[in-house]
Amino acid sequence: MLAGGYGGAKLSHGLALASAAARERGAAGLELSIIVNTGDDLEIHGLSVSPDLDTVMYTLAGLANEATGWGVRDETWSGSQMLARYGAATWFGLGDRDVATNLLRSQALRAGERLTEVTGRLGGALGVTARLLPMADEPVRTEVLTSEGWLEFQEYFVHRHHAVDVVAVRHVGAESARPTAEVLAAIAAAELIVLAPSNPFVSIGTILAVPGMAGALRAAAAPVVAVSPIVGGAALRGPADRMFVTLGGEASASGVVAHYRMRFPGLVNGFVIDDLDAQATPALEATGATVLVTQTVMRDDAGRRALGEAILGRFLPGWPT
Amino acid sequence: MLAGGYGGAKLSHGLALASAAARERGAAGLELSIIVNTGDDLEIHGLSVSPDLDTVMYTLAGLANEATGWGVRDETWSGSQMLARYGAATWFGLGDRDVATNLLRSQALRAGERLTEVTGRLGGALGVTARLLPMADEPVRTEVLTSEGWLEFQEYFVHRHHAVDVVAVRHVGAESARPTAEVLAAIAAAELIVLAPSNPFVSIGTILAVPGMAGALRAAAAPVVAVSPIVGGAALRGPADRMFVTLGGEASASGVVAHYRMRFPGLVNGFVIDDLDAQATPALEATGATVLVTQTVMRDDAGRRALGEAILGRFLPGWPT
Repeated sequence: MLAGGYGGAKLSHGLALASAAARERGAAGLELSIIVNTGDDLEIHGLSVSPDLDTVMYTLAGLANEATGWGVRDETWSGSQMLARYGAATWFGLGDRDVATNLLRSQALRAGERLTEVTGRLGGALGVTARLLPMADEPVRTEVLTSEGWLEFQEYFVHRHHAVDVVAVRHVGAESARPTAEVLAAIAAAELIVLAPSNPFVSIGTILAVPGMAGALRAAAAPVVAVSPIVGGAALRGPADRMFVTLGGEASASGVVAHYRMRFPGLVNGFVIDDLDAQATPALEATGATVLVTQTVMRDDAGRRALGEAILGRFLPGWPT
Repeated sequence: MLAGGYGGAKLSHGLALASAAARERGAAGLELSIIVNTGDDLEIHGLSVSPDLDTVMYTLAGLANEATGWGVRDETWSGSQMLARYGAATWFGLGDRDVATNLLRSQALRAGERLTEVTGRLGGALGVTARLLPMADEPVRTEVLTSEGWLEFQEYFVHRHHAVDVVAVRHVGAESARPTAEVLAAIAAAELIVLAPSNPFVSIGTILAVPGMAGALRAAAAPVVAVSPIVGGAALRGPADRMFVTLGGEASASGVVAHYRMRFPGLVNGFVIDDLDAQATPALEATGATVLVTQTVMRDDAGRRALGEAILGRFLPGWPT
C-alpha cells in the first residue's frame, strides 16, 4: 500500500485486520508493506517529525487517537504548555507521548541511521508487524502555492488549517530522493498494490513524485488499485476536494480516476469507489478500468476490515473470501 | 554565587528573596549572578540536559518540584512511559515539562548558540531576573572512580543512586574549558562571592576545576564565603559526607573548611556553618577564617530567606540589616 496519514492509516489497519482474520480461519495472511508519504515531514524544536509515518504506526499499534485522527491516545500536553511558557511555537501539536517517538527518531537520524531503519525499529517495538517504509530516506518537503506564496506543508495544513486555496504543489528535494531498496523490493514482490484513499496531490502524489517510484509501480507484476478519497463529491477529511477545484479537475470519484489516468498514465489498473458514486461506474469501466463499488467510508474497525476484505477479495488472486 | 543543583538552588532562592524584601523596604536589592556547575550535564535521547542549571532556574522561576528537589512541579511522565514502550532508557527522569526545556536548549546549542546565551533566554522567558551563568560554554563532564571503574556522573548519581563509593573524581574536558566572559565579569564586579552549600567535590569542585576560575576568584575584590553543606557530620542531601570519607578528609564543618583551605589555598575568606556545629568555631577562627554560625538548614522559603539575609548581613558591606 501507498499511504498518507489519515485514510492510509485506516485502510492499512483494515488490511491488517483482514489479514489477522484470515489467519484465524487458518488461511495465509498478508505480508503487508506500507510505503508512506514523508513529504509532510517537518523539523520543529529540533525534532524530525514524520506525521504520516507516525499516524500509520500508532494506528497499527493500537495507540492512535481515533478522535483526532493523529497523535497518540491518552496523550498529555505538558511539554506543549511549557513550550508556550518559553514563547516557542505550539501551532504544531506535539503531545508528550508523541515527543518520545520524535526524540528517538531524531536521535537516530542524527546518529546516521536511515529513516527506514529507525522507522522499522520504532514500529517493531510497538508490536507493528507490517513493514512501515518511508517512501525515501532523503528528505522531501511538500510545499503549496497560495495567495501567501509558497508555504511548507504543515504551515498550510496545520498552522493555516488548510483554509487557503492551493494553486500549485511542489515537492522540494524530490529530485535528489529515490525509493529505498526496501520500497523497490516491496513493489517488485507485491501481489497487489493499493493506493490508499489519501490526498492524490499531497500524499499519494508526493510518493509518486519520487523519481523512479512511478516507473517501479508500472513495472510491477501486481495490479495497482486506487481507492478514491472523494465520496459523494467531498473529501472525508482534509482539503482534497478543494484541491481538485483549484489545481484542476473535478472533486468526484470520476475526477480521481481522471487524475490518476492523466497524471500517471498506465499506472493504475483498478479503482475502488463508494456506493454513493456507483452511477459513475459505467463511464469509468468504459475507459478500461476495473472498478469495485463498495462501502469505502471506514466508520469503525469493522468498516476498515470490510473495506480491506472487499479490496482483497476483488483484486488479490487467491485471497480466501 | 557558585552553585550546584539542590543546595545551590535553595540558597539562590534565599538570596533572591532577601533581595526582594530589601527592595520592598526601599533599599537596593542584589544584582545576583549564579555561576552554575555544568559537570553534571549529560546527553540522553539526543537531548542536552543541564540538571543543575535547570534546578536553579526552576527554583528561581517558582516552578520547582520542591518534593523531589529536581524537575518541574505538576510534572507528567507520559513521554517517559512512551520511551519505556520503545525500550529506551528511562533511569534518568525526564518529565514532560522538563523535556520542553531540554528540547529548546538542545536545538539552540545545535544551531551554534552558546550555552550561556540559551540559558539566559530560557530563564528570562520564565521570569528569572538573576543571571544564570553556566560555569563554561565548553562541555565538562564529571566522572567518578568506583569499584565499577569510571562512571559518568549521572550514571553514578541517578542510575546507581550514588550507592557506590567514590575514590576519585575527574572533570573530563575541563582542560579545554574556560570561564565565560560573563562569569569573569560577574566575579570581577562582585561585592560578595558565595560558594553555595553544594557538594565540594562534584559541584563546587567542578566549577573550581575550570582553568582560570580559582584564579579569578582569588583576584576578585570581593570576599569569598563558603557555606558548609555538612551539618552535624552529615550531608543534608546526596553523597558529600561519604565522599569526605572515601576521598580523604572529615565529614564535618571543620572538614569542609579544611578541604577548601588545603585544595584551594587563599581562595575562601569566610565560612558559614550551622548552629549545630558551633563548637568548631574557635578552632576555625584560629586559622584566620571569618566564621558565621547560623541556621543553615533551609526547611522552607522563610529559612532560605533567613540564611540569605544572615550571609548578606555578615559579609556584604552596606547591606541593610
